[in-house]
Amino acid sequence: MMKKAYQELSRDQLLELPEQLAKEYEDAKGKGLSLDMSRGKPGISQLDMGMDIFDVLNSQSNMKSMENVDVRNYGVLDGLLEAKHMMADIMGVSAENVIVCGNASLTIMYDTVSRSMTHGVMGSTPWCKLDQVKFLCPAPGYDRHFAITEHFGIEMITVPMTPQGPDMDMVEKLVAEDPSIKGIWCVPKYSNPQGYSYSDETVRRFAALKPAAEDFRIFWDNAYAVHHLYEDRQDEILEILSECEKAGNPDMVYEFASTSKISFSGAGIAAIAASKGNLDFIKKSMTIQTIGFDKINQLRHVRSFKDFEGIKAHMRKHAAILRPKFEAVQEVLERELDGLGIGTWTKPNGGYFISFDAMEGCAKAIVAKCKEAGVTLTGAGATYPYGRDPRDSNIRIAPSFPTPEEMAMATDLFVLCVKLVSVEKLLGM
Amino acid sequence: MMKKAYQELSRDQLLELPEQLAKEYEDAKGKGLSLDMSRGKPGISQLDMGMDIFDVLNSQSNMKSMENVDVRNYGVLDGLLEAKHMMADIMGVSAENVIVCGNASLTIMYDTVSRSMTHGVMGSTPWCKLDQVKFLCPAPGYDRHFAITEHFGIEMITVPMTPQGPDMDMVEKLVAEDPSIKGIWCVPKYSNPQGYSYSDETVRRFAALKPAAEDFRIFWDNAYAVHHLYEDRQDEILEILSECEKAGNPDMVYEFASTSKISFSGAGIAAIAASKGNLDFIKKSMTIQTIGFDKINQLRHVRSFKDFEGIKAHMRKHAAILRPKFEAVQEVLERELDGLGIGTWTKPNGGYFISFDAMEGCAKAIVAKCKEAGVTLTGAGATYPYGRDPRDSNIRIAPSFPTPEEMAMATDLFVLCVKLVSVEKLLGM
Repeated sequence: MMKKAYQELSRDQLLELPEQLAKEYEDAKGKGLSLDMSRGKPGISQLDMGMDIFDVLNSQSNMKSMENVDVRNYGVLDGLLEAKHMMADIMGVSAENVIVCGNASLTIMYDTVSRSMTHGVMGSTPWCKLDQVKFLCPAPGYDRHFAITEHFGIEMITVPMTPQGPDMDMVEKLVAEDPSIKGIWCVPKYSNPQGYSYSDETVRRFAALKPAAEDFRIFWDNAYAVHHLYEDRQDEILEILSECEKAGNPDMVYEFASTSKISFSGAGIAAIAASKGNLDFIKKSMTIQTIGFDKINQLRHVRSFKDFEGIKAHMRKHAAILRPKFEAVQEVLERELDGLGIGTWTKPNGGYFISFDAMEGCAKAIVAKCKEAGVTLTGAGATYPYGRDPRDSNIRIAPSFPTPEEMAMATDLFVLCVKLVSVEKLLGM
Repeated sequence: MMKKAYQELSRDQLLELPEQLAKEYEDAKGKGLSLDMSRGKPGISQLDMGMDIFDVLNSQSNMKSMENVDVRNYGVLDGLLEAKHMMADIMGVSAENVIVCGNASLTIMYDTVSRSMTHGVMGSTPWCKLDQVKFLCPAPGYDRHFAITEHFGIEMITVPMTPQGPDMDMVEKLVAEDPSIKGIWCVPKYSNPQGYSYSDETVRRFAALKPAAEDFRIFWDNAYAVHHLYEDRQDEILEILSECEKAGNPDMVYEFASTSKISFSGAGIAAIAASKGNLDFIKKSMTIQTIGFDKINQLRHVRSFKDFEGIKAHMRKHAAILRPKFEAVQEVLERELDGLGIGTWTKPNGGYFISFDAMEGCAKAIVAKCKEAGVTLTGAGATYPYGRDPRDSNIRIAPSFPTPEEMAMATDLFVLCVKLVSVEKLLGM
């Protein structure tokens, strides 16, 4: 059967669809599915594949770092040198620009905003003393970023995303005009949820920003730096710290990364990279907040992965597990929705998500219908500041946790719900 | 030779002392000592003794918690149930009152103050919006506590310590009168640095406080809950959460504990205990700050120690290592200083410190003299808010890191410096 866009069907032709779709939906509900594609959680086979890390330390191990630090005792605020090198390699920066922290880059980001609220940024007025603090939020984006800024009462301004990154005309104009804009959230590589990677031009324009606020910072969450899906199609982005330095803005960016989706989610190591000026300022608070992070886990990671080649080899194994899941989704989406005009979606080369745009006003209903039949998606709206997608269109699909077979089943249900909701919308039901 | 207090010597008798002491001091300097008794760092034999923990997890291990949580993945904000039980047992509270966090109770304390600054306490005005915020600081006390409050611009009011705990008359009066007093730092058991444990009466008076500020909280840092030095002399304190509840103040206390000096410093697990009302409020921020703490390390700890009996057995081994170090210090202090009237010191049954009080105006000079001859002590004044000991008298001795032999050598030097500085003081030199 030739596919025709729903919008091109006559009303009579459209009216033929709901009955069959509703029947299929009832059948699907009857299957008793219980699948979760709401969050970017690694799948069990990825976790199993990483278990070797627990063999690198045992009761007989040498517990000294390369700088002869006993990792079992207090000391070393900013991380073991070898762990700095490992995290620096992942981000493509120098080890001297890195502080290795605890188990989550999200916590570093939260703490960075929190510290700016109470202590300002490199000598600026603490944000909590200002009448207004705003952040730019490229959207669709990462809900946990938006949650941090919302939690601190920071006003969020949505900036549209494009396949090359955020709308830089808008970013440049806003940060130059408004000194209350203090930051922007970025996932520059394999963005959450679209899987877009910022173009070289976008990165250069970021580095060359002329913010009205001296304490404006780019929050560069390089969460998927080495998280490619393919050997032959890999996105690479320009390294932002050196670009900022070249552009005369060495202090304008904080970069974040972690091994949460390299080793284990929640039990990895995380890091921040920034200029010496920023790191010195951060350490003033950090030395009050902690005597030091978990150096044993830092050592465990370095001994397990050894070097950047080890990381890359390990990520190829992750890719081999993730690729079939992403492809299962893409296959069903293409087979069932191509040409129907009721949805578009991204085909990322890496990262953890596929972004789906339904017809305007349909996302909430699609997610609800999926949920009713046993498939949990990220809440519609979550990819926008305040959880409000103005078009009620974007849905984030996280293919990582279920098996490829489960992903195919879940996507079958998803496309069915997309059709059903879209038809009802077109019919004004 | 019969010992006579320096103060009872004639000026001529006193004048005989400096030459001999100075000679001994020069000899001591010649030994090229390099010993650190500045911080409460576990010694190497304690760390070696704890290495078994690395054998409980390997690549073949079952990574499910007792509630069937895959500890390798995201999820579980407030800690594994079995880890809550372990930390609850250490604090003597219920598991339902516990959140298990990351690697350091200091970080939980910092975050608790930081959150109060930006978000208030259970609905109160954020402290950063108030003109004045004050904390009571029993002193001598823990320098890192004072550093947190100073970092946030909180005014610190010194409360004298007694062997039964802080001066409760003063505490009761101040918190009842002044609504800007929002907290008090406590190390209730084997206090840092004196090793005092709060009496039952002190704990009950804490629980029955009638603070003018509804957002007043007791910061109960139970850092040495199971850190006894002796089998037959163990301090026990009343459990504060239930005492507060009995007194009608269920929300008035946060309790903190960690395994930093049970397993490994900086690579242990830490916890906060509080009322449901407090925990619910804390979780509102915590769920923004993190997806979850390191559950693998939580599981590792529970599998290694098994239960509270396991913790206690392990702590007996720590005691066996620490006791000779404390006794080495006590032996030298008694032999050399008893009866001289130039110093008093505590004889704790547990914890990590001995507190020494020199003659007024001598502490800084003693610490400097020790440093010059190769023995590093905690900076004089560190045990007081703002690093200012009004009497310049208190010195914290941390016997845990050096060996007993080194401790004896270090203490030999210390007593020599005490004598030298005291004589000079008495002679007005």
